[in-house]
Amino acid sequence: MGFGAVHGGDVERVARKYGVDPSEILDFSANINPTPLPVETEDYLLKSLKEVDRYPDREYRRLRGALSRYSGVNQGNIMVGNGATELLYLTARALKVSRVLLPVPSFAEYERALTCVQADITYFPLKEEEGFSLNIDRLMKELSRGYDLIILCNPNNPTGQLIQWDDMMKILEKCQRQETVLLLDETFIEFTPQPQERLFQEISPYPNVILIRALTKFFGIPGLRLGYCLANSLLLEKLWAQKEPWTVNIAASMVGAFLLENGDFIQRSREWIKEERPFMTAKLQEIPGFRVYQSCANFILLKLLQEGWTSSWLKERLEERRILIRDASSFPGLDSSFIRIAIKDRENNLKLLQVLESLRGRTVT
Amino acid sequence: MGFGAVHGGDVERVARKYGVDPSEILDFSANINPTPLPVETEDYLLKSLKEVDRYPDREYRRLRGALSRYSGVNQGNIMVGNGATELLYLTARALKVSRVLLPVPSFAEYERALTCVQADITYFPLKEEEGFSLNIDRLMKELSRGYDLIILCNPNNPTGQLIQWDDMMKILEKCQRQETVLLLDETFIEFTPQPQERLFQEISPYPNVILIRALTKFFGIPGLRLGYCLANSLLLEKLWAQKEPWTVNIAASMVGAFLLENGDFIQRSREWIKEERPFMTAKLQEIPGFRVYQSCANFILLKLLQEGWTSSWLKERLEERRILIRDASSFPGLDSSFIRIAIKDRENNLKLLQVLESLRGRTVT
Repeated sequence: MGFGAVHGGDVERVARKYGVDPSEILDFSANINPTPLPVETEDYLLKSLKEVDRYPDREYRRLRGALSRYSGVNQGNIMVGNGATELLYLTARALKVSRVLLPVPSFAEYERALTCVQADITYFPLKEEEGFSLNIDRLMKELSRGYDLIILCNPNNPTGQLIQWDDMMKILEKCQRQETVLLLDETFIEFTPQPQERLFQEISPYPNVILIRALTKFFGIPGLRLGYCLANSLLLEKLWAQKEPWTVNIAASMVGAFLLENGDFIQRSREWIKEERPFMTAKLQEIPGFRVYQSCANFILLKLLQEGWTSSWLKERLEERRILIRDASSFPGLDSSFIRIAIKDRENNLKLLQVLESLRGRTVT
Repeated sequence: MGFGAVHGGDVERVARKYGVDPSEILDFSANINPTPLPVETEDYLLKSLKEVDRYPDREYRRLRGALSRYSGVNQGNIMVGNGATELLYLTARALKVSRVLLPVPSFAEYERALTCVQADITYFPLKEEEGFSLNIDRLMKELSRGYDLIILCNPNNPTGQLIQWDDMMKILEKCQRQETVLLLDETFIEFTPQPQERLFQEISPYPNVILIRALTKFFGIPGLRLGYCLANSLLLEKLWAQKEPWTVNIAASMVGAFLLENGDFIQRSREWIKEERPFMTAKLQEIPGFRVYQSCANFILLKLLQEGWTSSWLKERLEERRILIRDASSFPGLDSSFIRIAIKDRENNLKLLQVLESLRGRTVT
């Protein structure tokens, strides 16, 4: 039985394979902020126990209030969801999209969500020879052909590329003129060197943009499932019309609202990524046999240059050492010479570096 | 902005209206088992904190294991979801249903889920003069007209009626012959006098049945969002093909797996409903002005007989006393002379009875 698209983070499978507890697996395959959650998180989780006997507020007024303060966006422009994933699938359904432009490589669920609504997908290749950056001239030309929707991941997973601000404005203008909805997945935006919090204010005059964000990555709670989107209220109404009720549970809602207002956690996380991204990038560049792609996110795309090495072979060698990485060969536009690794805390980053160093020169057997 | 179908349980709205804390509202509008959760629930909730930094296992192997032991059904026949709701919407989408037969009055989300997929709904009225019971001859005849899907809620919300076993077998046979999928919503099944746990075993030879259940009602955790469905594996594969990943979060998964194996909670809950359902039914019958419908579930449908009384008027009078009931007029087939009340613990049941008694003879102003 198929369980959907390929993803990192299948810690349970690897733990079973090696007969160890999942907590013993060092997971570089899912891109989660490793900054420890504030100790008070426990209190908020326990507080939710007092409300498990009630349905969640269908409008999530408290949570949307916290999101409004966090994002500076009016509550009426905010919808919450079971991770970014729910909002992605909901958008595909509610907007009844037919012709969709999809830059690749990118997050696997886009393609799956679009396939579920039988959309006609045109792939827009981000080219290796262009460093996987978005070629704006080529994109403008392609958008002229007329699409219902374009999905952009910014910064992009798995390449780590951020769209230049000037390019973004061109895309916004073009989508506006072409009546193309722009779905902008910003689930990694808080990791970028200059978090573009101004973006929603800048885009709010554009009626055809949906910004999807989540607490999954930056706030490090993939297990709780909490995402949100920001959009023009007319566009949100179309989503509300198809939205399933109560999809965010009370534990996610309570903990999420607390974390959004925890300035200390946010500060510590920013300091961590500011240190570790350049550190890991530089250290990886020192190991021969990898091409390291500059990233604006909390993960790094690597190309394996050593003869005979493949992503699945390397993945298995690392799994033997209880380290999980993302074999990136399943991303359309990439092949078995690509892997993606998350950036973790210094101690674990050093462990990965050491293991990669130890494999250096090793021939595929 | 519309937020979907009408439901009970909007405790937050009433709390805001009267400027009190939601915990001060006595909620008879949502049908939740009031038996206190085992004290160890807290431990399991806290345990989930250790896993919030990981994506949930997409296949939910541990949770499905617990469901398998609880239901006696093979894991391969089990799928979990964000409440029964997700599985309902998923079924409507994945089976691409067009012609649907829908007995009414029944749970409001059926109609909404079907409307979302533009299904052509034929309503099958459960008639007041038949005590809202399912007229099997009329149903057989209607099914002969050929439908893709029929949704039966058993016991039915809001009427409390249970389908007779012989009738169920007739329906199963008929659906099999007609190639109609039978979606059987059993979210209240554990409250029935003789819980029909044998049902899945009996229906498993039928390839076209989906049983939807949830931990929402009987295990009293609507705030955590946890449902599941049991079906033939070929049918489940169709659902898997459209299923959104990770919709059950780790808190729901941990607490759910624990509760399913807590025999003491299950026992106490059965004893409670065995006491309170006949008690409330009898006491309500003693108050003139109500027609009391016999229920096999943990709620009771009432018809207001007193001249001038309407469901919304009575609802408001009770809200003034911080008691929330379900105005049942929004159910197709019912009108403003119907309300539905949940059965709670003895102390709260007595409170409601007292207030209803005090309103006796009161004229609408």
